[in-house]
Amino acid sequence: MKIAIVLFARFTALDAVGPYETLGRLPDAELTFVAERTGPVRSDTGRLALTADKALSELTDPDVVVVPGGPGQSAQMENEVLLDWLRTADTTSTWTTSVCTGSLLLAAAGLLDGRRATSHWLARDTLKQFGAEPTGERVVVDGKYVTAAGVSSGIDMGLTLVGTIAGDDHAQAVQLLTEYDPQPPYDAGSPEKAPAHLVEKFRAESRFILE
Amino acid sequence: MKIAIVLFARFTALDAVGPYETLGRLPDAELTFVAERTGPVRSDTGRLALTADKALSELTDPDVVVVPGGPGQSAQMENEVLLDWLRTADTTSTWTTSVCTGSLLLAAAGLLDGRRATSHWLARDTLKQFGAEPTGERVVVDGKYVTAAGVSSGIDMGLTLVGTIAGDDHAQAVQLLTEYDPQPPYDAGSPEKAPAHLVEKFRAESRFILE
Repeated sequence: MKIAIVLFARFTALDAVGPYETLGRLPDAELTFVAERTGPVRSDTGRLALTADKALSELTDPDVVVVPGGPGQSAQMENEVLLDWLRTADTTSTWTTSVCTGSLLLAAAGLLDGRRATSHWLARDTLKQFGAEPTGERVVVDGKYVTAAGVSSGIDMGLTLVGTIAGDDHAQAVQLLTEYDPQPPYDAGSPEKAPAHLVEKFRAESRFILE
Repeated sequence: MKIAIVLFARFTALDAVGPYETLGRLPDAELTFVAERTGPVRSDTGRLALTADKALSELTDPDVVVVPGGPGQSAQMENEVLLDWLRTADTTSTWTTSVCTGSLLLAAAGLLDGRRATSHWLARDTLKQFGAEPTGERVVVDGKYVTAAGVSSGIDMGLTLVGTIAGDDHAQAVQLLTEYDPQPPYDAGSPEKAPAHLVEKFRAESRFILE
Protein backbone atom coordinates (compact mmCIF):
# COMPACT_ATOMS: atom_id res chain seq x y z
CA MET A 1 0.00 0.00 0.00
CA LYS A 2 1.62 3.22 -1.21
CA ILE A 3 1.22 6.11 1.23
CA ALA A 4 2.34 9.59 0.20
CA ILE A 5 2.70 12.36 2.79
CA VAL A 6 3.04 15.75 1.14
CA LEU A 7 5.53 18.34 2.40
CA PHE A 8 5.74 22.04 1.58
CA ALA A 9 7.63 24.97 3.11
CA ARG A 10 6.35 25.96 6.57
CA PHE A 11 4.20 22.87 7.15
CA THR A 12 3.47 21.91 10.77
CA ALA A 13 5.62 18.91 11.64
CA LEU A 14 3.23 17.04 13.94
CA ASP A 15 0.50 17.26 11.26
CA ALA A 16 2.68 15.01 9.12
CA VAL A 17 4.39 12.88 11.77
CA GLY A 18 1.17 11.78 13.54
CA PRO A 19 -0.16 10.02 10.41
CA TYR A 20 3.35 8.80 9.56
CA GLU A 21 3.76 7.09 12.95
CA THR A 22 0.38 5.35 12.68
CA LEU A 23 -0.26 4.71 8.95
CA GLY A 24 3.42 3.85 8.51
CA ARG A 25 2.78 0.83 10.74
CA LEU A 26 0.20 -0.72 8.42
CA PRO A 27 1.26 -4.27 7.55
CA ASP A 28 2.30 -3.50 3.98
CA ALA A 29 2.99 0.22 4.24
CA GLU A 30 5.25 1.70 1.61
CA LEU A 31 5.32 5.25 2.97
CA THR A 32 7.05 8.09 1.17
CA PHE A 33 7.42 11.78 2.01
CA VAL A 34 6.94 13.76 -1.21
CA ALA A 35 7.33 17.42 -2.16
CA GLU A 36 7.61 19.49 -5.28
CA ARG A 37 11.36 18.88 -5.12
CA THR A 38 13.30 16.22 -3.20
CA GLY A 39 15.45 17.16 -0.22
CA PRO A 40 14.92 18.84 3.13
CA VAL A 41 11.70 20.83 3.67
CA ARG A 42 11.58 23.26 6.62
CA SER A 43 8.65 23.29 9.01
CA ASP A 44 6.80 26.38 10.26
CA THR A 45 9.21 27.10 13.13
CA GLY A 46 12.25 26.95 10.84
CA ARG A 47 13.82 24.65 13.41
CA LEU A 48 13.12 21.29 11.78
CA ALA A 49 13.52 19.87 8.30
CA LEU A 50 12.01 16.62 7.06
CA THR A 51 13.40 15.04 3.92
CA ALA A 52 11.19 14.61 0.87
CA ASP A 53 12.47 11.38 -0.66
CA LYS A 54 10.54 11.71 -3.90
CA ALA A 55 9.31 14.56 -6.04
CA LEU A 56 5.57 14.78 -6.61
CA SER A 57 6.21 13.83 -10.24
CA GLU A 58 7.86 10.58 -9.15
CA LEU A 59 4.88 9.26 -7.20
CA THR A 60 1.55 9.95 -8.86
CA ASP A 61 -0.47 6.88 -7.87
CA PRO A 62 -0.48 6.60 -4.06
CA ASP A 63 -3.17 4.50 -2.40
CA VAL A 64 -3.27 6.92 0.52
CA VAL A 65 -2.62 10.66 0.23
CA VAL A 66 -1.93 12.66 3.41
CA VAL A 67 -1.82 16.46 3.27
CA PRO A 68 -0.63 18.25 6.41
CA GLY A 69 -1.33 21.88 7.16
CA GLY A 70 0.55 24.73 8.74
CA PRO A 71 1.19 28.41 8.09
CA GLY A 72 2.74 27.49 4.72
CA GLN A 73 -0.59 26.20 3.42
CA SER A 74 -1.81 29.59 2.23
CA ALA A 75 1.15 30.00 -0.13
CA GLN A 76 0.19 26.66 -1.70
CA MET A 77 -3.45 27.53 -2.35
CA GLU A 78 -2.64 28.69 -5.87
CA ASN A 79 0.26 26.32 -6.52
CA GLU A 80 -1.10 24.53 -9.56
CA VAL A 81 1.72 21.96 -9.49
CA LEU A 82 0.56 20.76 -6.10
CA LEU A 83 -3.16 21.15 -6.80
CA ASP A 84 -2.82 19.23 -10.08
CA TRP A 85 -0.89 16.51 -8.30
CA LEU A 86 -3.63 16.23 -5.68
CA ARG A 87 -6.29 15.91 -8.39
CA THR A 88 -4.27 13.28 -10.24
CA ALA A 89 -3.40 11.29 -7.10
CA ASP A 90 -7.04 11.42 -6.08
CA THR A 91 -8.18 9.69 -9.26
CA THR A 92 -6.49 6.46 -8.13
CA SER A 93 -6.30 6.84 -4.34
CA THR A 94 -8.25 4.63 -1.95
CA TRP A 95 -8.06 7.32 0.73
CA THR A 96 -7.45 11.04 0.35
CA THR A 97 -6.74 12.62 3.72
CA SER A 98 -5.61 15.78 5.45
CA VAL A 99 -4.67 17.14 8.86
CA CYS A 100 -5.23 20.71 10.03
CA THR A 101 -5.31 23.30 7.22
CA GLY A 102 -4.30 20.59 4.76
CA SER A 103 -8.05 20.26 4.14
CA LEU A 104 -8.04 23.75 2.63
CA LEU A 105 -5.61 22.45 0.00
CA LEU A 106 -7.84 19.47 -0.76
CA ALA A 107 -10.76 21.88 -0.99
CA ALA A 108 -8.82 24.29 -3.24
CA ALA A 109 -8.12 21.34 -5.53
CA GLY A 110 -11.89 20.87 -5.77
CA LEU A 111 -11.88 17.53 -3.96
CA LEU A 112 -14.19 18.38 -1.07
CA ASP A 113 -17.12 19.94 -2.97
CA GLY A 114 -20.26 19.30 -0.95
CA ARG A 115 -18.42 16.97 1.40
CA ARG A 116 -18.34 17.02 5.20
CA ALA A 117 -14.85 17.95 6.35
CA THR A 118 -12.87 19.55 9.13
CA SER A 119 -9.71 21.59 9.66
CA HIS A 120 -7.84 23.46 12.38
CA TRP A 121 -10.49 25.14 14.56
CA LEU A 122 -9.31 28.56 13.38
CA ALA A 123 -9.73 27.54 9.73
CA ARG A 124 -12.90 25.52 9.86
CA ASP A 125 -15.18 28.26 8.57
CA THR A 126 -12.83 28.92 5.66
CA LEU A 127 -13.65 25.46 4.32
CA LYS A 128 -17.08 26.77 3.36
CA GLN A 129 -15.55 29.25 0.93
CA PHE A 130 -14.13 26.29 -0.96
CA GLY A 131 -17.33 24.31 -1.13
CA ALA A 132 -16.96 21.92 1.80
CA GLU A 133 -19.32 21.53 4.75
CA PRO A 134 -17.32 22.00 7.96
CA THR A 135 -18.16 19.93 11.02
CA GLY A 136 -16.92 20.07 14.59
CA GLU A 137 -15.75 16.44 14.74
CA ARG A 138 -12.08 15.64 15.29
CA VAL A 139 -11.91 13.12 12.44
CA VAL A 140 -14.42 13.32 9.60
CA VAL A 141 -14.89 10.45 7.16
CA ASP A 142 -16.95 11.21 4.05
CA GLY A 143 -16.53 8.46 1.50
CA LYS A 144 -12.83 8.09 0.84
CA TYR A 145 -12.09 11.60 2.14
CA VAL A 146 -10.81 11.71 5.71
CA THR A 147 -10.03 15.09 7.24
CA ALA A 148 -8.74 15.76 10.74
CA ALA A 149 -8.81 18.82 12.98
CA GLY A 150 -5.66 20.69 14.13
CA VAL A 151 -2.12 19.35 14.38
CA SER A 152 -2.29 16.52 16.94
CA SER A 153 -5.54 15.13 15.52
CA GLY A 154 -3.57 13.38 12.79
CA ILE A 155 -2.73 10.67 15.34
CA ASP A 156 -6.42 9.98 15.91
CA MET A 157 -7.03 10.05 12.15
CA GLY A 158 -4.14 7.69 11.49
CA LEU A 159 -5.35 5.17 14.06
CA THR A 160 -8.90 5.41 12.73
CA LEU A 161 -7.69 4.66 9.22
CA VAL A 162 -5.39 1.84 10.38
CA GLY A 163 -8.45 0.25 12.00
CA THR A 164 -10.54 0.61 8.85
CA ILE A 165 -7.81 -0.71 6.57
CA ALA A 166 -6.18 -3.41 8.71
CA GLY A 167 -8.74 -4.14 11.44
CA ASP A 168 -9.25 -3.23 15.07
CA ASP A 169 -6.62 -5.64 16.33
CA HIS A 170 -3.87 -4.09 14.25
CA ALA A 171 -4.90 -0.56 15.17
CA GLN A 172 -4.87 -1.47 18.84
CA ALA A 173 -1.39 -2.95 18.40
CA VAL A 174 -0.22 0.34 16.89
CA GLN A 175 -1.82 2.27 19.74
CA LEU A 176 -0.12 0.02 22.30
CA LEU A 177 3.30 0.24 20.63
CA THR A 178 3.10 4.01 20.43
CA GLU A 179 1.75 4.01 24.01
CA TYR A 180 -1.01 6.36 22.92
CA ASP A 181 -2.75 6.71 26.25
CA PRO A 182 -2.98 10.51 26.28
CA GLN A 183 -2.90 12.32 29.61
CA PRO A 184 -2.68 16.03 28.80
CA PRO A 185 -1.82 18.08 31.88
CA TYR A 186 -4.54 20.60 30.92
CA ASP A 187 -7.94 20.36 29.28
CA ALA A 188 -7.58 23.20 26.82
CA GLY A 189 -7.32 21.38 23.50
CA SER A 190 -10.39 22.80 21.79
CA PRO A 191 -12.04 26.23 21.64
CA GLU A 192 -14.95 24.82 23.65
CA LYS A 193 -12.64 23.78 26.49
CA ALA A 194 -9.83 26.36 26.53
CA PRO A 195 -9.95 29.59 28.55
CA ALA A 196 -12.08 32.08 26.61
CA HIS A 197 -9.40 34.78 26.57
CA LEU A 198 -7.04 32.45 24.67
CA VAL A 199 -9.70 31.54 22.13
CA GLU A 200 -10.47 35.22 21.58
CA LYS A 201 -6.80 36.11 21.31
CA PHE A 202 -6.12 33.52 18.63
CA ARG A 203 -9.29 34.33 16.73
CA ALA A 204 -8.11 37.94 16.61
CA GLU A 205 -4.64 36.85 15.46
CA SER A 206 -5.74 34.02 13.23
CA ARG A 207 -3.35 35.10 10.51
CA PHE A 208 -0.73 33.48 12.72
CA ILE A 209 -2.12 30.13 11.69
CA LEU A 210 -3.54 30.84 8.29
CA GLU A 211 -0.78 32.75 6.56
CA MET B 1 16.34 29.14 26.06
CA LYS B 2 18.45 26.61 24.13
CA ILE B 3 16.67 23.31 23.52
CA ALA B 4 18.59 20.41 22.00
CA ILE B 5 16.76 17.36 20.64
CA VAL B 6 19.15 14.49 20.00
CA LEU B 7 18.86 12.32 16.89
CA PHE B 8 20.51 8.97 16.16
CA ALA B 9 19.95 6.30 13.50
CA ARG B 10 16.63 4.44 13.91
CA PHE B 11 15.09 6.81 16.45
CA THR B 12 11.28 6.91 16.63
CA ALA B 13 10.10 10.10 14.95
CA LEU B 14 7.12 10.93 17.16
CA ASP B 15 9.34 10.62 20.26
CA ALA B 16 11.22 13.65 18.98
CA VAL B 17 8.45 15.57 17.23
CA GLY B 18 6.04 15.59 20.21
CA PRO B 19 8.48 17.57 22.39
CA TYR B 20 9.54 19.67 19.39
CA GLU B 21 5.97 20.76 18.68
CA THR B 22 5.36 21.74 22.31
CA LEU B 23 8.71 22.91 23.75
CA GLY B 24 9.49 24.61 20.45
CA ARG B 25 6.58 26.95 21.19
CA LEU B 26 8.09 28.30 24.40
CA PRO B 27 8.32 32.11 24.19
CA ASP B 28 12.10 32.24 23.75
CA ALA B 29 12.75 28.79 22.33
CA GLU B 30 15.94 28.34 20.36
CA LEU B 31 15.41 24.73 19.39
CA THR B 32 18.02 22.69 17.54
CA PHE B 33 18.08 19.10 16.35
CA VAL B 34 21.55 17.68 17.05
CA ALA B 35 23.32 14.44 16.19
CA GLU B 36 26.83 13.08 16.11
CA ARG B 37 27.09 14.46 12.59
CA THR B 38 24.94 17.08 10.84
CA GLY B 39 22.60 16.10 8.04
CA PRO B 40 19.65 13.75 7.60
CA VAL B 41 19.10 11.05 10.23
CA ARG B 42 16.77 8.16 9.36
CA SER B 43 14.03 7.03 11.72
CA ASP B 44 13.23 3.44 12.70
CA THR B 45 10.98 2.75 9.70
CA GLY B 46 13.59 3.99 7.25
CA ARG B 47 10.85 6.06 5.66
CA LEU B 48 11.58 9.43 7.26
CA ALA B 49 14.69 11.51 7.78
CA LEU B 50 14.95 14.53 10.07
CA THR B 51 17.83 16.93 9.62
CA ALA B 52 20.35 17.41 12.41
CA ASP B 53 21.31 21.07 12.06
CA LYS B 54 24.22 20.93 14.47
CA ALA B 55 26.74 18.33 15.54
CA LEU B 56 26.78 17.41 19.22
CA SER B 57 30.17 19.10 19.47
CA GLU B 58 28.66 22.38 18.27
CA LEU B 59 26.04 22.63 21.00
CA THR B 60 27.28 21.55 24.41
CA ASP B 61 25.36 23.87 26.74
CA PRO B 62 21.63 23.44 26.08
CA ASP B 63 19.17 24.56 28.74
CA VAL B 64 16.87 21.68 27.84
CA VAL B 65 18.07 18.29 26.58
CA VAL B 66 15.55 15.94 24.94
CA VAL B 67 16.54 12.35 24.16
CA PRO B 68 14.07 10.32 22.10
CA GLY B 69 14.06 6.53 21.97
CA GLY B 70 13.42 3.94 19.32
CA PRO B 71 14.95 0.67 18.15
CA GLY B 72 18.22 2.48 17.45
CA GLN B 73 18.70 3.26 21.14
CA SER B 74 20.42 -0.05 21.94
CA ALA B 75 23.22 0.64 19.45
CA GLN B 76 23.86 3.93 21.28
CA MET B 77 24.15 2.41 24.76
CA GLU B 78 27.91 2.13 24.41
CA ASN B 79 28.44 5.15 22.19
CA GLU B 80 30.79 7.15 24.40
CA VAL B 81 30.57 10.20 22.15
CA LEU B 82 26.86 10.46 22.84
CA LEU B 83 27.07 9.42 26.50
CA ASP B 84 29.87 11.93 27.15
CA TRP B 85 27.84 14.64 25.46
CA LEU B 86 24.84 13.81 27.64
CA ARG B 87 27.01 14.03 30.79
CA THR B 88 28.50 17.36 29.67
CA ALA B 89 25.18 18.86 28.60
CA ASP B 90 23.67 17.76 31.90
CA THR B 91 26.18 19.75 33.91
CA THR B 92 24.64 23.00 32.67
CA SER B 93 21.10 21.99 31.70
CA THR B 94 18.04 23.22 33.53
CA TRP B 95 16.05 20.21 32.35
CA THR B 96 17.34 16.84 31.15
CA THR B 97 14.54 14.86 29.54
CA SER B 98 13.72 11.76 27.53
CA VAL B 99 10.87 10.05 25.74
CA CYS B 100 10.44 6.29 25.39
CA THR B 101 13.71 4.31 25.52
CA GLY B 102 15.65 7.56 25.52
CA SER B 103 15.63 7.19 29.31
CA LEU B 104 17.84 4.12 28.94
CA LEU B 105 20.45 6.38 27.33
CA LEU B 106 20.20 8.89 30.18
CA ALA B 107 20.53 5.98 32.61
CA ALA B 108 23.50 4.51 30.72
CA ALA B 109 25.17 7.91 31.01
CA GLY B 110 24.75 7.59 34.78
CA LEU B 111 22.27 10.45 35.04
CA LEU B 112 19.32 8.58 36.55
CA ASP B 113 21.06 6.81 39.46
CA GLY B 114 18.52 6.36 42.25
CA ARG B 115 16.01 8.55 40.43
CA ARG B 116 12.38 7.82 39.65
CA ALA B 117 11.97 7.49 35.89
CA THR B 118 9.93 5.87 33.15
CA SER B 119 10.34 4.53 29.63
CA HIS B 120 8.40 2.65 26.96
CA TRP B 121 6.28 0.06 28.80
CA LEU B 122 8.35 -2.75 27.26
CA ALA B 123 11.59 -1.19 28.53
CA ARG B 124 10.54 0.03 31.94
CA ASP B 125 12.06 -2.86 33.88
CA THR B 126 15.36 -2.44 32.03
CA LEU B 127 15.76 0.95 33.73
CA LYS B 128 16.48 -0.91 36.98
CA GLN B 129 19.60 -2.49 35.50
CA PHE B 130 20.95 1.02 35.01
CA GLY B 131 20.21 2.23 38.51
CA ALA B 132 16.93 4.07 38.05
CA GLU B 133 13.66 3.37 39.84
CA PRO B 134 10.96 2.77 37.22
CA THR B 135 7.43 4.00 37.84
CA GLY B 136 4.20 3.50 35.94
CA GLU B 137 3.41 7.18 35.44
CA ARG B 138 3.25 8.66 31.95
CA VAL B 139 5.47 11.64 32.79
CA VAL B 140 7.89 11.42 35.71
CA VAL B 141 9.55 14.51 37.14
CA ASP B 142 12.42 13.90 39.58
CA GLY B 143 14.33 17.11 40.18
CA LYS B 144 15.44 18.39 36.80
CA TYR B 145 15.04 14.96 35.18
CA VAL B 146 11.81 14.48 33.26
CA THR B 147 11.19 11.13 31.59
CA ALA B 148 8.16 10.12 29.56
CA ALA B 149 6.66 6.76 28.64
CA GLY B 150 6.44 5.46 25.05
CA VAL B 151 6.41 7.46 21.82
CA SER B 152 3.29 9.68 22.01
CA SER B 153 3.88 10.54 25.68
CA GLY B 154 6.41 13.16 24.63
CA ILE B 155 3.49 15.46 23.82
CA ASP B 156 2.25 15.21 27.41
CA MET B 157 5.79 15.71 28.69
CA GLY B 158 6.34 18.71 26.48
CA LEU B 159 3.12 20.39 27.62
CA THR B 160 3.93 19.64 31.25
CA LEU B 161 7.33 21.26 30.88
CA VAL B 162 5.94 24.26 28.97
CA GLY B 163 3.58 24.81 31.90
CA THR B 164 6.39 24.59 34.44
CA ILE B 165 8.70 26.88 32.48
CA ALA B 166 6.29 29.43 31.01
CA GLY B 167 3.14 29.04 33.10
CA ASP B 168 -0.25 27.41 32.73
CA ASP B 169 -1.62 30.05 30.40
CA HIS B 170 1.14 29.57 27.85
CA ALA B 171 0.87 25.77 28.04
CA GLN B 172 -2.87 25.97 27.48
CA ALA B 173 -2.26 28.24 24.49
CA VAL B 174 0.10 25.63 23.02
CA GLN B 175 -2.47 22.90 23.67
CA LEU B 176 -5.18 24.95 21.96
CA LEU B 177 -3.02 25.81 18.94
CA THR B 178 -2.02 22.18 18.47
CA GLU B 179 -5.68 21.24 19.09
CA TYR B 180 -4.52 18.56 21.52
CA ASP B 181 -7.91 17.25 22.52
CA PRO B 182 -7.14 13.55 22.03
CA GLN B 183 -9.94 11.22 20.98
CA PRO B 184 -8.30 7.88 20.25
CA PRO B 185 -10.71 5.52 18.46
CA TYR B 186 -9.63 2.67 20.80
CA ASP B 187 -8.59 2.48 24.44
CA ALA B 188 -5.54 0.28 24.03
CA GLY B 189 -2.69 2.68 24.73
CA SER B 190 -1.19 0.97 27.76
CA PRO B 191 -0.53 -2.64 28.75
CA GLU B 192 -3.21 -2.33 31.42
CA LYS B 193 -5.84 -1.33 28.85
CA ALA B 194 -4.88 -3.19 25.66
CA PRO B 195 -6.14 -6.68 24.80
CA ALA B 196 -4.04 -9.18 26.76
CA HIS B 197 -3.01 -11.17 23.67
CA LEU B 198 -1.34 -8.07 22.19
CA VAL B 199 0.51 -7.32 25.41
CA GLU B 200 1.74 -10.91 25.57
CA LYS B 201 2.75 -10.91 21.93
CA PHE B 202 4.85 -7.78 22.26
CA ARG B 203 6.39 -8.88 25.53
CA ALA B 204 7.49 -12.08 23.75
CA GLU B 205 8.86 -10.05 20.83
CA SER B 206 10.24 -7.17 22.84
CA ARG B 207 13.43 -7.15 20.79
CA PHE B 208 11.30 -5.43 18.17
CA ILE B 209 11.37 -2.36 20.34
CA LEU B 210 14.59 -2.70 22.22
CA GLU B 211 17.08 -3.58 19.53
